[in-house]
Amino acid sequence: MSNYTAKHYKKEDEYSYCLGLTLTIELLKHKPEYATVVFIRESTSRDEGFLILESLAKKQKIEIIENNKAFNILDAKDNCFVIGVFKKFDCKLDYSKNHVCLVNPSDAGNLGTILRSSLGFNIENIVLIGQAVDEFSPKAVRSSMGAIFSLNIVRFASFDEYRRNDITRTLYPFMLKAKSELDKVDSKMKVGPYTLIFGNEATGLDDSYLKLGTPIIIKHTKRIDSINLPIAVSIALYEFTKDDELK
Amino acid sequence: MSNYTAKHYKKEDEYSYCLGLTLTIELLKHKPEYATVVFIRESTSRDEGFLILESLAKKQKIEIIENNKAFNILDAKDNCFVIGVFKKFDCKLDYSKNHVCLVNPSDAGNLGTILRSSLGFNIENIVLIGQAVDEFSPKAVRSSMGAIFSLNIVRFASFDEYRRNDITRTLYPFMLKAKSELDKVDSKMKVGPYTLIFGNEATGLDDSYLKLGTPIIIKHTKRIDSINLPIAVSIALYEFTKDDELK
Repeated sequence: MSNYTAKHYKKEDEYSYCLGLTLTIELLKHKPEYATVVFIRESTSRDEGFLILESLAKKQKIEIIENNKAFNILDAKDNCFVIGVFKKFDCKLDYSKNHVCLVNPSDAGNLGTILRSSLGFNIENIVLIGQAVDEFSPKAVRSSMGAIFSLNIVRFASFDEYRRNDITRTLYPFMLKAKSELDKVDSKMKVGPYTLIFGNEATGLDDSYLKLGTPIIIKHTKRIDSINLPIAVSIALYEFTKDDELK
Repeated sequence: MSNYTAKHYKKEDEYSYCLGLTLTIELLKHKPEYATVVFIRESTSRDEGFLILESLAKKQKIEIIENNKAFNILDAKDNCFVIGVFKKFDCKLDYSKNHVCLVNPSDAGNLGTILRSSLGFNIENIVLIGQAVDEFSPKAVRSSMGAIFSLNIVRFASFDEYRRNDITRTLYPFMLKAKSELDKVDSKMKVGPYTLIFGNEATGLDDSYLKLGTPIIIKHTKRIDSINLPIAVSIALYEFTKDDELK
């Protein structure tokens, strides 16, 4: 059975993997219905974290199986003793809420970091446009630190296709050519539902986005070309949600 | 001669490496006096970027040498065609300026990203305390995108040792246990010279820092344990420098 063996991960696969104990606990807490099995190394010690995992797995009727091979196949680090296997899932966007929209993001680690920040600043709906990197890759899952299991992530082939579903929402594309500075954003602008839009790591958003909503720039010195993508997204999230109660 | 060959990098080495064309250009622009040689692959095409490199190297009398072996030794990616070799250098802190201080940072990629953000928000003086990861490792150099060549980075064994040099500066330790929220920081608090202090990725700052200056927290939801370190530093930098002119 495909869900009892591990295989080298490919984008088109039906299943993916949580490499690590904490990550697997997040899976079992937030998306247990998609968890299929948990692999552990033969030498795994039954410490406190393991007992939490065990009790969650028991409650959800998910088997914990010793399978050293899986750790080799998935290239797990030596300090990784737990692998959670899960079936990939579909999400629905909540259009009454604020969104983060990423156009062609190319790095799995960056995407994961952005997911973690989004959850940290209470934005639960994430839009991926175009040739976006695979959010279910073990690397993205890992760098999200499990945030992926608490978010609604939906893909669209183009921005137009996404926009068609809700033409009334406020759009904020983040661009170096923008005139409005992030630190001048006033509280009126933070009334949702809005979408914060960010381009690819290397190329940013193309000029067509200058005509959408209110383009915004995050000021920085000319001594760097641009701010790192996850950092730009997180600074924008911080500014847009600073007056909210973050629980 | 040690500066004409490459070797697998170790922390105690006298030399380190820029893996990549843009990075090597940053080295030759900002720290040419420490550059010793540039290695290229035999197949390297003479494109626009290469001509910039060549003219800088010529001006600085730095040799460009074909050396395929160096790329294997340093585990360079297939798309890396240029390696800049440089002698590690010492810096001096400017105590009249604002500082970013990292206590025991453990990840080279994170440190590089923080250096890039610091330069982007005009903080040129970086303090590393304790068991800090090696800022000269090729990975840190690379993720700084060359910012390391424009910053003053100085190490101290302990925070006390650093503080002894300037007991009058304002201190802002960033801690989850802090009471003051970053978004409530007023302009009076942004008058320097100040030091923004951040702990290790996994453990943060210990409680002794609660007694120093004004501890600050960056609010986030309880759905994540903490904000990723480079992101926390960058959000703090954004908030503290937003009223400055960033040139």
